[in-house]
Amino acid sequence: MNELRHPEALQTLQTDAAPVVRDLAGLLHALRASAAQRDRDGGHAAQEKQWIADAGLLTLAVPREFGGPGARWPEIYETIRKIARVDSALAHLLGFTCLQVVSVNVWGSPEQRARYLSGTVEGRWWWGNAVNPLDTRLVAGATGDGGYRLDGQKGFCSGTRGSHMMTVSAHDPATGKAVFAVVPTTREGITVHEDWNPIGQRQTDSGSVSFVRVLVESHEVLERADTPYASLRTLISQQVLTNLFVGIAQGALEEARAYVTQYGKPWITSGVDKATDDPYLIQRFGEMRLQAVSAEALAARAAYALEDAWQQGVALDAETRAHVALATSEAKIVAHRAALDVSEKLFDACGARATHAPLALDRFWRNARVHTLHDPLDYRVRDVGRYALSGTLPEVSLYT
Amino acid sequence: MNELRHPEALQTLQTDAAPVVRDLAGLLHALRASAAQRDRDGGHAAQEKQWIADAGLLTLAVPREFGGPGARWPEIYETIRKIARVDSALAHLLGFTCLQVVSVNVWGSPEQRARYLSGTVEGRWWWGNAVNPLDTRLVAGATGDGGYRLDGQKGFCSGTRGSHMMTVSAHDPATGKAVFAVVPTTREGITVHEDWNPIGQRQTDSGSVSFVRVLVESHEVLERADTPYASLRTLISQQVLTNLFVGIAQGALEEARAYVTQYGKPWITSGVDKATDDPYLIQRFGEMRLQAVSAEALAARAAYALEDAWQQGVALDAETRAHVALATSEAKIVAHRAALDVSEKLFDACGARATHAPLALDRFWRNARVHTLHDPLDYRVRDVGRYALSGTLPEVSLYT
Amino acid sequence: MNELRHPEALQTLQTDAAPVVRDLAGLLHALRASAAQRDRDGGHAAQEKQWIADAGLLTLAVPREFGGPGARWPEIYETIRKIARVDSALAHLLGFTCLQVVSVNVWGSPEQRARYLSGTVEGRWWWGNAVNPLDTRLVAGATGDGGYRLDGQKGFCSGTRGSHMMTVSAHDPATGKAVFAVVPTTREGITVHEDWNPIGQRQTDSGSVSFVRVLVESHEVLERADTPYASLRTLISQQVLTNLFVGIAQGALEEARAYVTQYGKPWITSGVDKATDDPYLIQRFGEMRLQAVSAEALAARAAYALEDAWQQGVALDAETRAHVALATSEAKIVAHRAALDVSEKLFDACGARATHAPLALDRFWRNARVHTLHDPLDYRVRDVGRYALSGTLPEVSLYT
Amino acid sequence: MNELRHPEALQTLQTDAAPVVRDLAGLLHALRASAAQRDRDGGHAAQEKQWIADAGLLTLAVPREFGGPGARWPEIYETIRKIARVDSALAHLLGFTCLQVVSVNVWGSPEQRARYLSGTVEGRWWWGNAVNPLDTRLVAGATGDGGYRLDGQKGFCSGTRGSHMMTVSAHDPATGKAVFAVVPTTREGITVHEDWNPIGQRQTDSGSVSFVRVLVESHEVLERADTPYASLRTLISQQVLTNLFVGIAQGALEEARAYVTQYGKPWITSGVDKATDDPYLIQRFGEMRLQAVSAEALAARAAYALEDAWQQGVALDAETRAHVALATSEAKIVAHRAALDVSEKLFDACGARATHAPLALDRFWRNARVHTLHDPLDYRVRDVGRYALSGTLPEVSLYT
Repeated sequence: MNELRHPEALQTLQTDAAPVVRDLAGLLHALRASAAQRDRDGGHAAQEKQWIADAGLLTLAVPREFGGPGARWPEIYETIRKIARVDSALAHLLGFTCLQVVSVNVWGSPEQRARYLSGTVEGRWWWGNAVNPLDTRLVAGATGDGGYRLDGQKGFCSGTRGSHMMTVSAHDPATGKAVFAVVPTTREGITVHEDWNPIGQRQTDSGSVSFVRVLVESHEVLERADTPYASLRTLISQQVLTNLFVGIAQGALEEARAYVTQYGKPWITSGVDKATDDPYLIQRFGEMRLQAVSAEALAARAAYALEDAWQQGVALDAETRAHVALATSEAKIVAHRAALDVSEKLFDACGARATHAPLALDRFWRNARVHTLHDPLDYRVRDVGRYALSGTLPEVSLYT
Repeated sequence: MNELRHPEALQTLQTDAAPVVRDLAGLLHALRASAAQRDRDGGHAAQEKQWIADAGLLTLAVPREFGGPGARWPEIYETIRKIARVDSALAHLLGFTCLQVVSVNVWGSPEQRARYLSGTVEGRWWWGNAVNPLDTRLVAGATGDGGYRLDGQKGFCSGTRGSHMMTVSAHDPATGKAVFAVVPTTREGITVHEDWNPIGQRQTDSGSVSFVRVLVESHEVLERADTPYASLRTLISQQVLTNLFVGIAQGALEEARAYVTQYGKPWITSGVDKATDDPYLIQRFGEMRLQAVSAEALAARAAYALEDAWQQGVALDAETRAHVALATSEAKIVAHRAALDVSEKLFDACGARATHAPLALDRFWRNARVHTLHDPLDYRVRDVGRYALSGTLPEVSLYT
Repeated sequence: MNELRHPEALQTLQTDAAPVVRDLAGLLHALRASAAQRDRDGGHAAQEKQWIADAGLLTLAVPREFGGPGARWPEIYETIRKIARVDSALAHLLGFTCLQVVSVNVWGSPEQRARYLSGTVEGRWWWGNAVNPLDTRLVAGATGDGGYRLDGQKGFCSGTRGSHMMTVSAHDPATGKAVFAVVPTTREGITVHEDWNPIGQRQTDSGSVSFVRVLVESHEVLERADTPYASLRTLISQQVLTNLFVGIAQGALEEARAYVTQYGKPWITSGVDKATDDPYLIQRFGEMRLQAVSAEALAARAAYALEDAWQQGVALDAETRAHVALATSEAKIVAHRAALDVSEKLFDACGARATHAPLALDRFWRNARVHTLHDPLDYRVRDVGRYALSGTLPEVSLYT
Repeated sequence: MNELRHPEALQTLQTDAAPVVRDLAGLLHALRASAAQRDRDGGHAAQEKQWIADAGLLTLAVPREFGGPGARWPEIYETIRKIARVDSALAHLLGFTCLQVVSVNVWGSPEQRARYLSGTVEGRWWWGNAVNPLDTRLVAGATGDGGYRLDGQKGFCSGTRGSHMMTVSAHDPATGKAVFAVVPTTREGITVHEDWNPIGQRQTDSGSVSFVRVLVESHEVLERADTPYASLRTLISQQVLTNLFVGIAQGALEEARAYVTQYGKPWITSGVDKATDDPYLIQRFGEMRLQAVSAEALAARAAYALEDAWQQGVALDAETRAHVALATSEAKIVAHRAALDVSEKLFDACGARATHAPLALDRFWRNARVHTLHDPLDYRVRDVGRYALSGTLPEVSLYT
């Protein structure tokens, strides 16, 4: 799909990330080739994750001062979108590695930032996520030296399997608060379970993780900041999801186009010689593209707003941050709907034979369906509606 | 605008089929219990098909004169709908057995009707379908005694696996015409392949069948009639699909209700204590029901119109038949959309945990998606539009 | 899911109303001829109301025992729908005359029923409505002899202008309750104002009425019953609106068809010779008809359910009444949407020249828009959703 | 409505137009105050057009070299959008004056550009449009000296009434080609008729114009260029319409917000104290804003693409121009739908009392409805679909 350049995009790409991001064709081709099979198998995509690491993408969110490419958010999300077109599970893994890098960046001390961000560059680390303050089954006990001992379980730990490092949140009953930390995934006492078995997004390595007497040293504990700047992390996470949805919509449209071009036959009563001349099929592609294009435009709008806020750093004020949250919700809602609709309509375009299970063309819908349930659409629409009706901007929350 | 008459429903249920149709609770419960597992496994549901036979449903379409219950079409479709709520693949098998019974009924000679319709009652036959005039790979050669020899392949032969009898169409190159016949599925030279592997409707036994020197005797050859009455067969087939869609929509709604009632938790910012008090969730159920109810109302309207036409027998005129075709298309379009939408929205109602693969709650969408591709929706809408704009009634075709 | 029975329609038409209802072509033609002009003028349609009276329609809801035709509800609503196709304002007036007849029928004493229902037949009375318990500006003071004196205002008094009789509700501050009564519109102290000036439904005579020392005699006071049977009155009212919406959708579709057939030109790049061959125009008509047909089917379903309940009379139980309320809401929601959508799409079908103001083809949308705001759609969807999610049937209220 | 800045927008506004465009509050307030009354009256808005001229907006599209402000297209369209929020008819007049300025700019000789563009600055000219090659009723006869004599009629001549100058196209039967020219509206033989009477956009001065022996001098004849650059004129025109639609959607949303905030009452069964707390009303505002925001984002995307192409001048190649055409169609389709939907839903938000005719809140829908019929939506979707399915870019045409 030909994406119209945003005027700013030219300047955007004058970062060190540009060569990396521009040259993804080989990687995308390879990922697409095995996507249907890997959707069926589920489990862990070790080789494909290695390809992504080899392409230099794991450091996208690392600032230039720590050896990263200084990529800007529109650029990072464009990359995630491109991968999501062929494999939204692996795109999720990349997005969540970027997100953990951001967590260290905004919550870490100067020493932690230096250690973990430089480490990500030098070690090509995949990061896993065990941060979820709503899940309080993981308990942190202070060890007296500034560190903690972790015991318990954590669910939906995206990216932990096969990762080098992970961020984790745990409930400290002594204080009633959440403790945040970075730990190597291989630390003694950590077991990553292979229990992730959803109807879609099957290779996001999002199983549960159990912790038995896992020691966290004091220099690994993150102090979660509550500044508007630090809370951009949540919006970065939501825009990862948004761009997965956009990529799914675009990818479904591309597969539909490829299938119809190759296998499409005109319907018996259509009166046309080629499927590509069918007036109703053309209209379906028009509508699918309109949804994909709308979602992409709103995602780009939100990414530019985020970048603008991100550049302001700790000086960012709450109102500007809230406007980014609003734009993020608007983009996510539109992308949510586009992903589901286009991936469903793919079949109306391709016809009955496209339902042969080995083609796994339903993976776009299943991937969209699983990922669009992260938080309820209705409450995101409510946030937009409150602003539209009463001017009330979204509050900072786990999802906005 | 020509309004179709609603004939009486009360009398409808005064048939011998009433007790059979009313007492399906046990069967439905048993089918639902294993539906998720069988969706995953695919293949042949021998035991469940036996239960359906034991419930006395295979003879629903057999006229009273041959020992059938004299069920009327609204009653038959209500039965199919009920089964489709829990298992639309098995409902399809039952519907297609009814359809083959109709084929014999409208195309058969008095002797053939007596033999095969009484045989269905006595032998509790499941019927398979190898009639598809568009697929000309199966060749019929006249044997000189009024019979034929069949050689070749046939695809999408719903219900053939595990059936006792099948209807078949074959291309006779000598005449350029199609030959229709009834043959026992076990006849020498017939091989039913286990190659049906779609993303949904996985237990419809719709694989391919190969024929090697299969002899068809002259008394097995059907003379396909082209009367308006005989061509109701196509509409009966289309209404089977329509009611599968309605059943899928209703079943998805029921599963959503059951899941939310049992597992639903209010969203963290909803301000309500119970999921069932969530204003947005209530609205989603409202919209799902509106779609299911609309689809059911149009399906009932079409079934009554069909019954009315069916009762006229060979006296039926082409225009009345065409009005039934129009009502059938209207119902099928609305049901198509309801099945897809409700089965997708099921997840918005139930939330992320409902995507756990072993629950297979996506089977409603996958079943709907596979079956709604039988013929393109757009051309059915075109038929409705031509009538609305120019008063042109649908022509008799393979799908209308 | 509880499926409503379809009772028989054939018998329905075997009432004395059949000849009246069947022979409306002349009336409809005459009403359509002046509808655009009267929409512009607004005000009172004295002549057209006379035609409706002359056609014998004012007594439709009067039981046979009082000289009425014994029409059944599906028949009455079909009549209202037919008129609404050409003029939904006058159809509203007819529907509300039927509604006031019902009010007397269910709330009146035997003497009142005899007097007012026979009077409707003999005097060809139009009835106006000043019943609206939410509007408490009209005050009733007991006169000590069982009668009342009324002082104050009432708004939205549909049909009062030009009516012979009216029903009225007033607030009695002494008891805190509402008083209901029948009074002749010409009674001293009653002034019907010509202040009805909405964007649509401009000839429903729904202005305000002021009362100055209006005497109501004791024999004119109605005792409002709260039985399930009497509360069918509210559903009868809601189904009047529902069928206005259906009629608007059907009428808009008919106007679109007539316009395109007469004036339609193929678009310059369409490649077809006639507008009626344009594939996209055909599709638009298909979608418009699907909406109209769905709305009509649900309206018919609700009307049969109502008739069934109505026949039970005072024996009707609350649950059956609530199921009719549910069916009524379902039909009203679908009809609401159909009326708005079809009347908007009329223009996509007809093109730019159809926006010439003297044609007033926007009156369908304006009529639909005004009337669909009677009560909020969202709360009606909530009622349907509560039933679908929790099995809770709608409560009796002013609107359900 | 708070519009998020596009990163580029900052730079954009560093033109001489910035002060003009930023300070529109007074003008907008005044236009809004009389918009309902002027919608009812129709006809010519002489005073309001003077205000727009006084605000310095008529020269927006005049290049800096001729004394214009050097505004960029995103800036011009933002201005049109802002005016369209309160009065889409007057916004249309401004947009079409910009369009005629462009016509002279791309088709004129150096002398013509100097004369007419400088003249627009010095004389504060409103321009009218009598260019419509499809309407061949206006005949041009060569006078032998390079000039022409015009005789005949032209319809839909937006902005001619009250204009100083007009562009005109006429059919030359001797060559079979169209002749283009600039003439003062006051030239002898030109009569602008007051016959514009549509259901919406009532003050666009789009009546017919008749020409009797109107002399066009040779220096007034424009040579229409067919370069990709010159054909941007069509896209500039289409984006004027697009931004009218966006403005209508935004304006309808603003009126709904203002009305509900001021007059909204909670529904009797809502359980909330204020209308602004109603969960369903909030959701409606959310959906309305999502439509307005999507339309605005795509309109901005198209405007930036146009500006980028415009900057390339005569060097612009056909493919880049075609991509702008595609983006323009995508934006126009989304804006078309947003304008209709939001202006219809305004009433669901505001309730029944908002239908009082003097409020004229239906003018948003009527304005949207008239203007969205300029060319059929379906054929624009076809263009998008052809690109999505086959990669075929839109051809240059009268509308793309």
